Amino acid sequence: MPGTRISLKDVAGRVGVHPSTASRVLNPATRQMVSEELAARVLAAAEEMGYCPNPFALGLRTRRSFIVGVLTPDLTNPVFPPMFRGIEKVLAEAGFSAMLADSHIPGVRERTILDKMKSRWLDGLILATAHRKDPLVAECLAEKIPFVLINRTTDDESIPCVVNDDRSGIRQAVEHLYGLGHTKIAHITGAQNTSTGYARFEGFTESMRELGLEPEIDLIVNCETLSETEGRQAISSLLGRGKQFTAIACANDLIALGCYDVLRKRGLKCPDDISITGFNDMPFADKFDPPLTSIRIPLLEMGEKAAGLLLKLIEDPEARIKSEKVTPQLIIRQSTAKARTS
Amino acid sequence: MPGTRISLKDVAGRVGVHPSTASRVLNPATRQMVSEELAARVLAAAEEMGYCPNPFALGLRTRRSFIVGVLTPDLTNPVFPPMFRGIEKVLAEAGFSAMLADSHIPGVRERTILDKMKSRWLDGLILATAHRKDPLVAECLAEKIPFVLINRTTDDESIPCVVNDDRSGIRQAVEHLYGLGHTKIAHITGAQNTSTGYARFEGFTESMRELGLEPEIDLIVNCETLSETEGRQAISSLLGRGKQFTAIACANDLIALGCYDVLRKRGLKCPDDISITGFNDMPFADKFDPPLTSIRIPLLEMGEKAAGLLLKLIEDPEARIKSEKVTPQLIIRQSTAKARTS
Repeated sequence: MPGTRISLKDVAGRVGVHPSTASRVLNPATRQMVSEELAARVLAAAEEMGYCPNPFALGLRTRRSFIVGVLTPDLTNPVFPPMFRGIEKVLAEAGFSAMLADSHIPGVRERTILDKMKSRWLDGLILATAHRKDPLVAECLAEKIPFVLINRTTDDESIPCVVNDDRSGIRQAVEHLYGLGHTKIAHITGAQNTSTGYARFEGFTESMRELGLEPEIDLIVNCETLSETEGRQAISSLLGRGKQFTAIACANDLIALGCYDVLRKRGLKCPDDISITGFNDMPFADKFDPPLTSIRIPLLEMGEKAAGLLLKLIEDPEARIKSEKVTPQLIIRQSTAKARTS
Repeated sequence: MPGTRISLKDVAGRVGVHPSTASRVLNPATRQMVSEELAARVLAAAEEMGYCPNPFALGLRTRRSFIVGVLTPDLTNPVFPPMFRGIEKVLAEAGFSAMLADSHIPGVRERTILDKMKSRWLDGLILATAHRKDPLVAECLAEKIPFVLINRTTDDESIPCVVNDDRSGIRQAVEHLYGLGHTKIAHITGAQNTSTGYARFEGFTESMRELGLEPEIDLIVNCETLSETEGRQAISSLLGRGKQFTAIACANDLIALGCYDVLRKRGLKCPDDISITGFNDMPFADKFDPPLTSIRIPLLEMGEKAAGLLLKLIEDPEARIKSEKVTPQLIIRQSTAKARTS
């Protein structure tokens, strides 16, 4: 950082030694080359004067930046700040900092961000942006960049990741709705080129069939991005098809909020007319109107685990890393109720 | 970043020149020392091989990291992600990246984060954590670190900042409540050692007096942090005092959400029994039960402006920077209604 920087030379001058002597003391690897008494004086002066080693010189020597890049698809989705908090906590404890980039910024794409992160020689990456087939992930792999995926993974199961058990999550939602008497259950999916969207869709159809309910093609709508806007479009499309349904299992909470908007506008009531489940149990889900039944995933814990795996990989790029799958939990609130008997 | 890094030597080898020649070409300042034809060949090889200059060597030479530190008090408060998005957008356009730290992490304090950011010689800082008298801000000033405050400022008005007109915001809330017939209006404040908490409190008492209403000491409760938990405690304290009131102007939306919880638990209705206003118009404020009347501040724009000011300061540390104050806007929803005539 610019400003009044204390140099090695300043420290050496204060003690009255040559800068190369001060340098030997300040590098733990060479400290024993200097007498203990002199080393103590140099260290005391460095401490007192607030000396910081030049991070660029340190980087040249160690080839480490002690910076990890974190790439999120949408930081304003309240799911990501707690994940980031978990990541940063574990990184900070190990002396690392987090460079954060949000790929959702119009005009700034993942490609550009990755290139920039690579040019900075960060020590590793945590990617929350992966697609099932992801050329950027393939590139990180080919270039032997230490990285870990979080939340979303790819079809290549060998890549280290920390994800949620999405199939189990949507299954809990479907079984809950079925238990309330719903049999005509719609599903608004996430993007099918993401592991989260795909696993939730698969989990939906699987659990419907296991309950003896045939998932109807007309009751499934696909969203490309997880947003309130896409949720509004999806439920409008569903309602426009004229097929009867009494519940919707949404692939995420923002989609569920979009559904709320359209139901209200059309004079329909949730849960009296249509029950709705979200996914992620985002912060404030208990404050919505109605409070949203959702699937809680341990966001902070996922961040902590991802950072932990990455630190292992940075320490030993050849380490065999075991991916982690966390367990989701159904949180029942007032957006789901017994099915109307029509 | 570790992995298969292309070095200057690799590029020189491909073209068949000495590394020092390749180095001269790749540094724009010395490129004219080499023939145009040779320079073109070196540049083409560097491009083709995906050569990235060593950022540590670049840092040593330029004493620039092209990294800006951003310090937030609580990233999970939905106010901060849009601000950060604005910051990162403007930084990225200028070739800078953002290192983000969230001081709210238990055990990791602002002091530690600032020390770490300083040790990295970042090019500048954006602080969303300032207190009215803030030793860390004084330290940045004394050490001539380029920095800009966002959202909160200090009592020293010479420090570059981008803030909201908090007095105007709370005034709009009070006048709105008064217009609905409320005269017994309570205020739950933010921390009085922050500019936001203090200006909103001052704006509250000023605007009450201008309307001919004497602010009552028993109808003002102070919160030290802006959270739902503190909001619950504050309204419980208010209700316990036995003084009549029909509306609460809250210093922020999270406090208002805490009020919702307690009102519901006690069987009181918002807005029928008590009208409530928030502050910040956080994302999802329109989805709460009831949708929250709040004060909108242009979060993205504030982030963009702060990054713009900081880039000017990084370019020229002696530049005279004009702080910016953005204008808030009352957003009326269903948490406020006509006062009961008792």
